Amino acid sequence: MTAYAAPIRDQLFILHDLLRIETIDLPGFAGLDRDFTAAILGEAGRLAAEVLAPLNPVGDRGGCVLKDGVVTTPAGFREAFRQMREGGWTAIDCREEDGGQGLPHLIHTAVQEPFVSANMAFDMYQGLTHGAYSAILRHGDAAQKALYLPRLASCEWTGTMNLTEPQCGTDLGLIRTRAEPQADGSYRITGQKIFISAGEHDLADNIIHLVLARAPGGGEGTRGLSLFIVPKYLADADGRLGARNAVTASKVEHKMGIHGNATCVMDYDGATGFLLGPLHKGMAAMFTMMNEARLGVGLQGYAVAETAWQAARAYAQERLQGRAVTGARNPDGPADPLIVHPDVRRLLMDQKSFVEGARALTYRGALLIDRATRGGDAGAEALLSLLIPVIKGFLTDKGFEMTVAAQQVFGGHGYIEETGLSQLVRDARIAMIYEGTNGVQALDLVGRKLPQDGGRAFTAYLKEVRDLIAAHADDARPGADFFAPLSRGLDDLQAAAMYFLEHGTRDPEAALAGAGDFLHLTGHVVLGDTWARLALAALESGEDEGFREAKLATARYYLSRHLPATALHLARIRAGAGAVMALPAGAF
Amino acid sequence: MTAYAAPIRDQLFILHDLLRIETIDLPGFAGLDRDFTAAILGEAGRLAAEVLAPLNPVGDRGGCVLKDGVVTTPAGFREAFRQMREGGWTAIDCREEDGGQGLPHLIHTAVQEPFVSANMAFDMYQGLTHGAYSAILRHGDAAQKALYLPRLASCEWTGTMNLTEPQCGTDLGLIRTRAEPQADGSYRITGQKIFISAGEHDLADNIIHLVLARAPGGGEGTRGLSLFIVPKYLADADGRLGARNAVTASKVEHKMGIHGNATCVMDYDGATGFLLGPLHKGMAAMFTMMNEARLGVGLQGYAVAETAWQAARAYAQERLQGRAVTGARNPDGPADPLIVHPDVRRLLMDQKSFVEGARALTYRGALLIDRATRGGDAGAEALLSLLIPVIKGFLTDKGFEMTVAAQQVFGGHGYIEETGLSQLVRDARIAMIYEGTNGVQALDLVGRKLPQDGGRAFTAYLKEVRDLIAAHADDARPGADFFAPLSRGLDDLQAAAMYFLEHGTRDPEAALAGAGDFLHLTGHVVLGDTWARLALAALESGEDEGFREAKLATARYYLSRHLPATALHLARIRAGAGAVMALPAGAF
Repeated sequence: MTAYAAPIRDQLFILHDLLRIETIDLPGFAGLDRDFTAAILGEAGRLAAEVLAPLNPVGDRGGCVLKDGVVTTPAGFREAFRQMREGGWTAIDCREEDGGQGLPHLIHTAVQEPFVSANMAFDMYQGLTHGAYSAILRHGDAAQKALYLPRLASCEWTGTMNLTEPQCGTDLGLIRTRAEPQADGSYRITGQKIFISAGEHDLADNIIHLVLARAPGGGEGTRGLSLFIVPKYLADADGRLGARNAVTASKVEHKMGIHGNATCVMDYDGATGFLLGPLHKGMAAMFTMMNEARLGVGLQGYAVAETAWQAARAYAQERLQGRAVTGARNPDGPADPLIVHPDVRRLLMDQKSFVEGARALTYRGALLIDRATRGGDAGAEALLSLLIPVIKGFLTDKGFEMTVAAQQVFGGHGYIEETGLSQLVRDARIAMIYEGTNGVQALDLVGRKLPQDGGRAFTAYLKEVRDLIAAHADDARPGADFFAPLSRGLDDLQAAAMYFLEHGTRDPEAALAGAGDFLHLTGHVVLGDTWARLALAALESGEDEGFREAKLATARYYLSRHLPATALHLARIRAGAGAVMALPAGAF
Repeated sequence: MTAYAAPIRDQLFILHDLLRIETIDLPGFAGLDRDFTAAILGEAGRLAAEVLAPLNPVGDRGGCVLKDGVVTTPAGFREAFRQMREGGWTAIDCREEDGGQGLPHLIHTAVQEPFVSANMAFDMYQGLTHGAYSAILRHGDAAQKALYLPRLASCEWTGTMNLTEPQCGTDLGLIRTRAEPQADGSYRITGQKIFISAGEHDLADNIIHLVLARAPGGGEGTRGLSLFIVPKYLADADGRLGARNAVTASKVEHKMGIHGNATCVMDYDGATGFLLGPLHKGMAAMFTMMNEARLGVGLQGYAVAETAWQAARAYAQERLQGRAVTGARNPDGPADPLIVHPDVRRLLMDQKSFVEGARALTYRGALLIDRATRGGDAGAEALLSLLIPVIKGFLTDKGFEMTVAAQQVFGGHGYIEETGLSQLVRDARIAMIYEGTNGVQALDLVGRKLPQDGGRAFTAYLKEVRDLIAAHADDARPGADFFAPLSRGLDDLQAAAMYFLEHGTRDPEAALAGAGDFLHLTGHVVLGDTWARLALAALESGEDEGFREAKLATARYYLSRHLPATALHLARIRAGAGAVMALPAGAF
């Protein structure tokens, strides 16, 4: 496969021309000029391309091996993890007092992208650790912060999230893992957790498990859950490792992809745990990290597709097969390159318009996180909350589809493992499932985010996009009818929301039956809006004409070819639950 | 994973109630009453469920191993292949004089379905052999027929197709393999072929390779190609094996899926080959088998999805997670089964409506093959020719999508290998690529099949569906507006064809840019038409009310939720090549 190269020019364009980060007055944003971001993204891209990408097929082939409770990661992972840690890449947006750089979550996100593109399974070790850092930062007491935060920031210790059990995935109310209070204020944790990413490995001295469990007195369902810190090794206040805790990996799953990451069954056999945050408020504690976590999975959706797209683009330029219908383009060669064929070009434009748009949308989301958390901006928080299920659900559905499209460009060569496309497809598949399946994202959007505050965030978003279009009503630069598909998409989105408003309470099944379509309808509009902004930013930018024209052509492609899908989704939403639920459950 | 069970009731319904095979007066159709077909499908289903399905994960895990030129198939494959041969399952539609049963291709197709559903990789060994049988039947001389046909019919010997080379996939004009005429009338074949399914294995005494190669005097491109029989072992006229021929497998590919089938690099080093059919007419000889081969791949598309769907349906009934929005359905249990949730139900209905519709469409296609080849029906031949790219391309695209949907129902459990869903997704993926990528199918449909004979077959098909709708204008049984989505779909299909007619010659790129959308537009209409016929057949059938109601509900689901996609495809087709080709190739 073609060597991965970080898309630094596009990243800088989004940060500086679209998001104009130099103009933002928030903690951590000072000094973020183009030289600084170019330097940091250049170094991140180099690490990704030179160190992580070569290990991606190694991790896929070798996987993680469990023997006598010890998991060995693929050859080369330990050394790469050391380089990742020593470069400070694990703590970009962590607090300076924890040894981090205090940069915005936006910069963390931009830095993460090439790491995920180059080696998603490897990146997850630090990704989950970052989640544990955030949870303890928000909910830990002073001693917990002092003990854990610096070590998680540096990935001297790594972290995990323990939610799923054999009998419960989406429905966390079914959790059985018990937490029994001890005289010293700690808890004894007993139960089994499954599908625990990075649950056991050889990359760090200690592993800090965050575990949802049921302590006495909390009642049934999710209300009875609390969050606990369960370290692999118990440590004193100075971080010196002591006794091995009673938590062990009893199995490493054999999965479709992300073989380089150890997905473990974790057995808690009276392990010592420490309450994190208030008792019986574990769900709330867990879900405060959700925006970041789900944005990160959305990033995986397009970042893996980016790698596949780079490979497909290069292959389509190199592979000679057939002749252009309008006359030979490579008359001296035995055939023309694949890229001359319109049907191949369509696959490439689908990928290009997706990954570039998705990158910009994800960075917009990351900036909203900064505005909400660093700036206390309630409007940003509300919009973020609305967009998160879209970023997670839509970008991972489409990311998988686009990775499959890249594989298709390779023909038979895409199906054999050595070209690497198969791994990318297999890796990309998980992002549609974990961190809340995409069905759960759709329900979150329709059932919670759309109606929240009487639909205020949704209405505000529609107005924001309509205002953008209105402001450019006389702008001839993007071309005639440039905004028309977006306008129609907004109409369809509004009509779909109206449908839910009218039917949701008296026929909740109708709303739920249309949830998946609403997620995709919203996704197309949001990506269309993002493309409109990218086109306008390109026109204003100092980039050369080739870059500007490419952005405009790609924007027109997305708007003209993908936005019309909103009408189909609206038609399905309006069809309601009738056809979906007509067949009795017993008749299946 | 839930054990696979052949869908015999649905198969019989299609054969007898939809296609009414007892009424067909063609060679091989006599005596095909319900008792006979029930017996044969029952036995095929039993073999599939009891012998082949248990070997499917075995083949996936073990794969095929090449050592010293010898390929060992997965444990159990040899014994299963013996049972398959001894049961006569490899020769259902072969001539009685070759030891076959002389039954219709339709019955062969119905028998193949459970074999593919249970173990696609295993079934390919006999599937390719059947292709070689057909090629020699049509193009072989008397001696070739006498030597090869009985042994291929029984799979005492197996067959392969050798087209692809490292530098050529779709573009067969780039083939370099040479055939040098020898004094005895044979040829010396030299070159390398890649991606040869079943190229080497331990299931049969001999392997008969059909090889496209370039003999002197035929000129450049595809016109210079001839088809050759190259046996692994040279045999005398009585089939006694003699010298080992100079053809060897130098590699078994490591693929995404179908691990149980050996995909080989085949090296021909002056191997002895025998011309099959006329010199320099190799392409024509190869492509006379194409309808059967592509129908067989379309069958793979839905047959693998059927297995995934059976598993998803069972899992959705058993897995308890969450509560129905309209009130608990399983109040005494810890949660309700997944199937109560509308978004899960939607995934299930998508799968059910696809696999049942696709089965009926594929059987309709197989019957057209019988009408064309056994009945000399030119109208059937023309319609078949039109439908083949749709059956291959649309059913494999959707088959993969539906297998992914089934995996999604399993959540995280679908991503680990032990539930089997991952294998089904990985196996299903190849059907979109081989036997002509789905891009090639789309071009075949738009560039050749649609305009053939001045669009006569296309026009006749539109009329046939419109006549069906007109004939039931006053039929209240299927429900109000039952046919409306199909009517609109036909309008869109006709409009798309008009667009190509108007633009195709002066802007061929516009037609080609819309080819993929036209394939899917046609696919939805053809599947919609098939569902309308299934619903009407159910109403006329002697099946019980539950069965009839389920068919009607599923028909309504497909028509109301999937047919509206035609408008989106039409919009994209009408957008032409502009946005697709706007970006210069160098700007990618």
